[in-house]
Amino acid sequence: MSMHEQIAEMGRKGVVASRELAKLSTKKKNIILDAMASGIEAGAEDIRAANRSDLEKGRAAGLSAAMLDRLELTDSRIEGMVLGIRNVVALQDPVGSEISSWIRPNGLNIRKIRVPIGLIGIIFESRPNVAAEAAALCFKTANALILRGGKEAIDSNRAIVDAMQNAGAEQGLPENSIQLVQTTEREAVRELVQLSEYMDLIIPRGGEGLIKAVTELAHVPVIKHYKGVCHSYIDSSADLDMALEIAVNAKCQRPGVCNAMETLLVHADVAEEFLPKLKERLDAEGVELRGDAGTQTILPGIAAATEDDWYEEYLDMVLAIRVVADVEEAVAHINKYGSHHSDAIVAEDENVQKCFLREVDSATVYLNASTRFTDGGEFGLGAEIGISTDKLHARGPMGLEELTTYKYLVEGQGQIRE
Amino acid sequence: MSMHEQIAEMGRKGVVASRELAKLSTKKKNIILDAMASGIEAGAEDIRAANRSDLEKGRAAGLSAAMLDRLELTDSRIEGMVLGIRNVVALQDPVGSEISSWIRPNGLNIRKIRVPIGLIGIIFESRPNVAAEAAALCFKTANALILRGGKEAIDSNRAIVDAMQNAGAEQGLPENSIQLVQTTEREAVRELVQLSEYMDLIIPRGGEGLIKAVTELAHVPVIKHYKGVCHSYIDSSADLDMALEIAVNAKCQRPGVCNAMETLLVHADVAEEFLPKLKERLDAEGVELRGDAGTQTILPGIAAATEDDWYEEYLDMVLAIRVVADVEEAVAHINKYGSHHSDAIVAEDENVQKCFLREVDSATVYLNASTRFTDGGEFGLGAEIGISTDKLHARGPMGLEELTTYKYLVEGQGQIRE
Repeated sequence: MSMHEQIAEMGRKGVVASRELAKLSTKKKNIILDAMASGIEAGAEDIRAANRSDLEKGRAAGLSAAMLDRLELTDSRIEGMVLGIRNVVALQDPVGSEISSWIRPNGLNIRKIRVPIGLIGIIFESRPNVAAEAAALCFKTANALILRGGKEAIDSNRAIVDAMQNAGAEQGLPENSIQLVQTTEREAVRELVQLSEYMDLIIPRGGEGLIKAVTELAHVPVIKHYKGVCHSYIDSSADLDMALEIAVNAKCQRPGVCNAMETLLVHADVAEEFLPKLKERLDAEGVELRGDAGTQTILPGIAAATEDDWYEEYLDMVLAIRVVADVEEAVAHINKYGSHHSDAIVAEDENVQKCFLREVDSATVYLNASTRFTDGGEFGLGAEIGISTDKLHARGPMGLEELTTYKYLVEGQGQIRE
Repeated sequence: MSMHEQIAEMGRKGVVASRELAKLSTKKKNIILDAMASGIEAGAEDIRAANRSDLEKGRAAGLSAAMLDRLELTDSRIEGMVLGIRNVVALQDPVGSEISSWIRPNGLNIRKIRVPIGLIGIIFESRPNVAAEAAALCFKTANALILRGGKEAIDSNRAIVDAMQNAGAEQGLPENSIQLVQTTEREAVRELVQLSEYMDLIIPRGGEGLIKAVTELAHVPVIKHYKGVCHSYIDSSADLDMALEIAVNAKCQRPGVCNAMETLLVHADVAEEFLPKLKERLDAEGVELRGDAGTQTILPGIAAATEDDWYEEYLDMVLAIRVVADVEEAVAHINKYGSHHSDAIVAEDENVQKCFLREVDSATVYLNASTRFTDGGEFGLGAEIGISTDKLHARGPMGLEELTTYKYLVEGQGQIRE
């Protein structure tokens, strides 16, 4: 079979599975999820063996220590997968719930009901535990799934998917509910994202290169989980003690994640008071600062921020700082350079607050809080498949509801159109 | 300027306009909409003159009578545009409305609020009144719009957009809120749909060829308004008198639209009773029938339906008929051959009803009613920009709400992440 035929065959099988999945009750799905978790537990030795094989090949291929670390499935990571799946059992099932309903003057009863999306493709890099997490969330929402992982994790991914699919099957999981693309050739990605006859959605989880390639090749709808160039704007009306705590938290609490702050904007009227205090705290944390001319005047000796810095997602202990004239300039900066992910204002003035909340075009806009709260767990969604930086279908943290679509059920008593 | 630069420049201007649009109040938007309607009224002579020029060129180019008819802007069609815009004034503005809100244990107040999508591109064919309708709906939801119409309607489209933009500007419509691609070269479509830096959504409105081309070229999210291969399934438990009225209505009341029935499925147990009665009624309407072997046995003399017929959107007085063994076979047929648009069951048996409503994977599924009700007006949405056959973001009739997205506003009192 050609690559095209192989992937198309997976698509066909996935659609068949999706029809069967849509018939399962919540109770049945939870029994199967529990079996999947037990399957990972029981198969831990096989998974570890497969992972050791990946690690060995990775070392031979010269993967970096960071890559090898992300690839490694330690005991606690395997336990984390098991707990993650069991956590999904406890979450409310959105499938079948009514979004709204109304009765038309002609008596037609219209109900808008949540249903599974159908067949979802997830393309991800290196961390094999993503496979288990994504599979549990897609299954709970009765979506069939085709996974395509990184070449370096192929044995680990196969072991995880086999453990889940086989243990699930014993409790009635439809065949091919969770499929893994077995070939590691790059061409498979193109085939997968162009499978518009069968595939309903592609979610790429990985770096900028992967997301850009998928977006440009895809004929299937894509929801991007893109980078987070997040800002905090400190207004002249801010409680500066609060601002200091928020800024330090947003930058330092976990700098390597997408909701960490990358650029701080500060109103000119408070910059002289605020920035030296901030520098003292960030120096203690080991954060490198890069500033515009206004910032450099107040904090002599720090490096100049270039135009590129404003677009940069450092994911590191680095912070760009700019002094702005007012909230409008802050908003314009964020809308131009940001990634529409998470942006915060610290301010007490209500007009300034309103302006910022209304005009910043981002998935999550914060008032007097750290950007670090953009997360399915912190939002109370229970779990997330990622954080969408797109505007259609899902924006911000994507939980179970965002893995569903809807259909209209229209019930009549013989109504015809005049 | 190269074509790429021209279109990118429109994109940049559209984003600037979208930021200004997002600041307008509902009241202000309604004043501007009213001015736009008056602008079309006042500019009717110019619009007619431009349309005459298009018609003349169309005749010279040998356009078909049907094409010329769709292109023509008669007095009543211009009046229709004016009324259409005034109708949008009266509709509820979804922008700013709260979808949901909750307070987290740490005190963060999370609100999910409807906001404009941003910059929308609509690519449409021949009927120039689409321009006015689309512009009114996008403006009411504070979206900036780039229109790309058919070559044959360029003068008409330009006159309509100029009338709306100019009359709106006098009441404060931001510059470039409604832009029209001025070049008729096909290359412009590619540039438009790949403008991912600026464009948030592309809606193609036209035939299968246009939609397929846009989907394959696009890097920007696309919502497809694809064909309607709609079914009615007559179960053995159906009230056959009701079934007859529904079937005749779904096929004949307006056969040229996407929610008209194209295929009828009938349970074997009632086929012998039902089909001859149906044939009598459809013969009287002049409908051509094509049947499977079972149907041909009952209705000798009708043509055989080929495999292609099951996939066909006739948009004409033609109906394909198939006898099925049960509701499961009907569902399987619909999910395989249908376009996931609108499908109906006529049945009294509750288990059969439930099975059909749950398992048919279509935007709108009807019980005991004609498929012809899939329409923004009939649904009570007030107006529609089209009927989505996609599953993401919008499914079925797309009204004003579906022209918005959402953002999360998270208000705290200094919360930081532990």
